[in-house]
Amino acid sequence: MSGTLYLVPAPLDYGCTSMSPLAQSMPEGTLKVASNLQHWVCENAKSTRAYLKRVGENHPLCVPLQSMQLQELPREVHKKGDHLGDFDARHLLKPAMDGFDVGLVSEAGMPAVADPGSSVVRAAHDLGLRVVPLVGPVSLLLALAASGLNGQNFAFVGYVPSGPDERAKRLRELESLALKTGQTQLFIETPYRNTAMLQTLLQTLQHNTRLATASGLTLDSAQCHSDTTKHWKSKAWALDNATPTVFAIGR
Amino acid sequence: MSGTLYLVPAPLDYGCTSMSPLAQSMPEGTLKVASNLQHWVCENAKSTRAYLKRVGENHPLCVPLQSMQLQELPREVHKKGDHLGDFDARHLLKPAMDGFDVGLVSEAGMPAVADPGSSVVRAAHDLGLRVVPLVGPVSLLLALAASGLNGQNFAFVGYVPSGPDERAKRLRELESLALKTGQTQLFIETPYRNTAMLQTLLQTLQHNTRLATASGLTLDSAQCHSDTTKHWKSKAWALDNATPTVFAIGR
Repeated sequence: MSGTLYLVPAPLDYGCTSMSPLAQSMPEGTLKVASNLQHWVCENAKSTRAYLKRVGENHPLCVPLQSMQLQELPREVHKKGDHLGDFDARHLLKPAMDGFDVGLVSEAGMPAVADPGSSVVRAAHDLGLRVVPLVGPVSLLLALAASGLNGQNFAFVGYVPSGPDERAKRLRELESLALKTGQTQLFIETPYRNTAMLQTLLQTLQHNTRLATASGLTLDSAQCHSDTTKHWKSKAWALDNATPTVFAIGR
Repeated sequence: MSGTLYLVPAPLDYGCTSMSPLAQSMPEGTLKVASNLQHWVCENAKSTRAYLKRVGENHPLCVPLQSMQLQELPREVHKKGDHLGDFDARHLLKPAMDGFDVGLVSEAGMPAVADPGSSVVRAAHDLGLRVVPLVGPVSLLLALAASGLNGQNFAFVGYVPSGPDERAKRLRELESLALKTGQTQLFIETPYRNTAMLQTLLQTLQHNTRLATASGLTLDSAQCHSDTTKHWKSKAWALDNATPTVFAIGR
């Protein structure tokens, strides 16, 4: 009898200065399953151990932290992205073939969504394993709901280019798509470029385009803003360069 | 001092024959906030009362169920969709202007995501209210993670047309977009058309296109499948016409 691959979400406070209690954003059901897993495939073993330590404070872990079997996804998968379909992850699922349940976890949020992990999920399906996604925080969807933008037709496009000209060009492309089709366009940026991104957005987008940001989701300090760029300019809303932020453009 | 608009997710078992315990898919933090709210804007008052009754079994409600103030979104917003920007929902937020926190809730999952509610969120931003999205189950993202398809670039496009010719045309359009750009395309269908949808997909898509389905998410009976359409045909995977299902196409 083969094991199950559980997709285990992680809290969104990774790398943040403040932390939120796990019970704030993790269902009991998710924490219970996580505490019973001994075998993991992860983005980073160190941060996974830190997360499991927090899980253990809520539910006793099935084995001591030092006895957890953690396998890291290779660096190429982090760097190039995990959506090309050219990484065969089946060997990482050997424990599942041996009958153990396995957890897949990333640094923050849902594995395989805006994060590596899809190669492992594909491999699980190819091996005929049961795949069970567990509920937890997903910054993209929290941001979308809080934006007031169209949630019945939306796209997440990952990162936009960092060079000023290419970035402005890409943002105009996304704006044009959002205005023409009504499809909300979501994207992310590394936090240290938040203020630069906001500046480019306000310089580039049309006055009546609606822009939304969601920063520090699930933290007490979470901030969600949404308005036309014209109004953004008159409101003194600011972002900092340390807090994870999701951006959305729509009409 | 104005109140906050909380976006309160609901469990995904709405309309399902089996139910999952709330703690399976709802964080303590979300249930606690929900139990403290007396003012609600909802898709349907009856199902909201049923949900709040379940919340009350986990956390005592701040007022008896009969004293809850529930305001329904008008029927036009359900029917036509809530993304056109032509429904002014500000009057529904009067309690928040009077200093009370307000909850926004839909039948299942996250309000304003593949469900009505965005007009209320926009109105909250226009009124300068704080908007706080709470963590809970979101079928689209659970399905995406479990699909093994590209989670770094994806779109949700709502429902596809129900007429056979238009449906096949739209599915070919989505397939072409997914194959060309690598952007995973997610969509939903009313459960009683699940088997018809699957049949059309298997007849319409190319052999090597990857098709994923996720049914009954968060239930013990949840089923997630993902493979090329060629392999789908040889595996005897079936859907039933009663369980909510998310579909995804990718490469």
